[in-house]
Amino acid sequence: MAELVSSNKVFGGDLRKYKFKSAALGGLSANFNLFLPSQASTTTKVPLLTYLAGLTCTEDNGAQKGGFFEAAAAKGLAILFPDTSPRGAGVPGEDDDWDFGTGAGFYLNATAPSYAPYYNMQTHVTLELPQIIEAAGLPIDFTRQSIFGHSMGGHGALTLYLASTTKQYRSASAFAPICNPMKCQWGQKAFTGYLQGGIEEAKTLYDATELIKRRNEPVNILIDYGTSDNFYKQGQLLPENFVAAAEGKNVSMRAQEGYDHSYYFISTFAPEHIHFHAKFLCD
Amino acid sequence: MAELVSSNKVFGGDLRKYKFKSAALGGLSANFNLFLPSQASTTTKVPLLTYLAGLTCTEDNGAQKGGFFEAAAAKGLAILFPDTSPRGAGVPGEDDDWDFGTGAGFYLNATAPSYAPYYNMQTHVTLELPQIIEAAGLPIDFTRQSIFGHSMGGHGALTLYLASTTKQYRSASAFAPICNPMKCQWGQKAFTGYLQGGIEEAKTLYDATELIKRRNEPVNILIDYGTSDNFYKQGQLLPENFVAAAEGKNVSMRAQEGYDHSYYFISTFAPEHIHFHAKFLCD
Repeated sequence: MAELVSSNKVFGGDLRKYKFKSAALGGLSANFNLFLPSQASTTTKVPLLTYLAGLTCTEDNGAQKGGFFEAAAAKGLAILFPDTSPRGAGVPGEDDDWDFGTGAGFYLNATAPSYAPYYNMQTHVTLELPQIIEAAGLPIDFTRQSIFGHSMGGHGALTLYLASTTKQYRSASAFAPICNPMKCQWGQKAFTGYLQGGIEEAKTLYDATELIKRRNEPVNILIDYGTSDNFYKQGQLLPENFVAAAEGKNVSMRAQEGYDHSYYFISTFAPEHIHFHAKFLCD
Repeated sequence: MAELVSSNKVFGGDLRKYKFKSAALGGLSANFNLFLPSQASTTTKVPLLTYLAGLTCTEDNGAQKGGFFEAAAAKGLAILFPDTSPRGAGVPGEDDDWDFGTGAGFYLNATAPSYAPYYNMQTHVTLELPQIIEAAGLPIDFTRQSIFGHSMGGHGALTLYLASTTKQYRSASAFAPICNPMKCQWGQKAFTGYLQGGIEEAKTLYDATELIKRRNEPVNILIDYGTSDNFYKQGQLLPENFVAAAEGKNVSMRAQEGYDHSYYFISTFAPEHIHFHAKFLCD
């Protein structure tokens, strides 16, 4: 069962931190934050928006710096903030680099033998956390879910949205996402490290540009990135590839002049992302 | 001269971090952040709101977690974020405790011999930073200034506002301020450590409750604190003493049910504090 670690009142709602032993992450202790708006009660379940953070982050970065709560409180949306990887798995090499291993789970299920017992962030986010939250008796309506994220977490949001065979999420949005990880250094490093089949294995599962190509139904996707983002300039994000692959599929891709990769950029457009999801969740 | 360290676009404006050698802080390198709204230009100077952070913080906490920029951008206000103490003075004992010394300058000018050469945060905030900003040619209208802060920084905002003989600030506001530091452990420790004359020396200079007693003119002060704030419960803040001393002097003191001492509390009421100051600054 999830144990309540702390609780902070914010914009009339509650931000709660929980920890629990995660089956998806090899039995390790995992944390998550959950914002419950004041509308949530024993008689009223609220929709759930999941926020996936980027490289090096934890469950706290989006909660502390994202600027999501004013709009979420107004719209009556809960927000789930998972961590970005297992912590303390002890796999050799997992702490050598900032862009792989701890803090860099890439929201996939690992198949490489040393990572597979622990690095199953896809299952953790999509299946395990909803189960844990439901078991805790928290007033969430799991039939109304959407997902968003930043950078590696933007990759996570797009791929978990597009790859879901059950249509778990009604909409996806992202700040400066890694859009075509097969084609950038971050993604290639992650896929070759976590997946036994490497990049080829990732192609149909974990690459948003590949996934949107194969998508026939309409999508609900909003993406913002900054033109002064150094990772964009270095070719880690590749939004142009995603846009080209998504032609005619209702993707709103906005290049924001002068913004960078930081939470200052995220917080600026945070209210618009919350309102975008509210259109699909608050019906 | 101030050297630009970094710049982040946020809500259409610019958050800039500068460093410079601080005369007030004994020649040590000091950092500050300055938010410039998009209204600021070579032909338009904007008002300045100074935000003083609390114990253990730096110039970054308020910028990253305060949630001030959306409202400040809308109102066209600049926000200055100073650090909370000198860094690296090397005074024996300054790093022994989290509530004294580094990160805990208390916005006073020290007179105890070992601290006096470095710990002059009052001069740093009120005199030196405006001079440095003006010398950098930044478009600030220094005839329109107000000040706010959190906890130790709320103490700073109230005392610098009330003690200013030149009426440097038009209004002051605070989140969970230390209102009567002579009467609480944090303040007593600071005053006996930094001031040769100890608490008696602090009485007419650095205690907001004492200062408001002596004030005859009307004031413009807004204070919020949370009823679930552990430091409030421990008697570190003593807002009741300030209210009693301020009777009839136009102080708005609000007890916010269930909120604690964190930036989640601050961010919730941040827009109202910005709008409060804008009434006095945007005329």
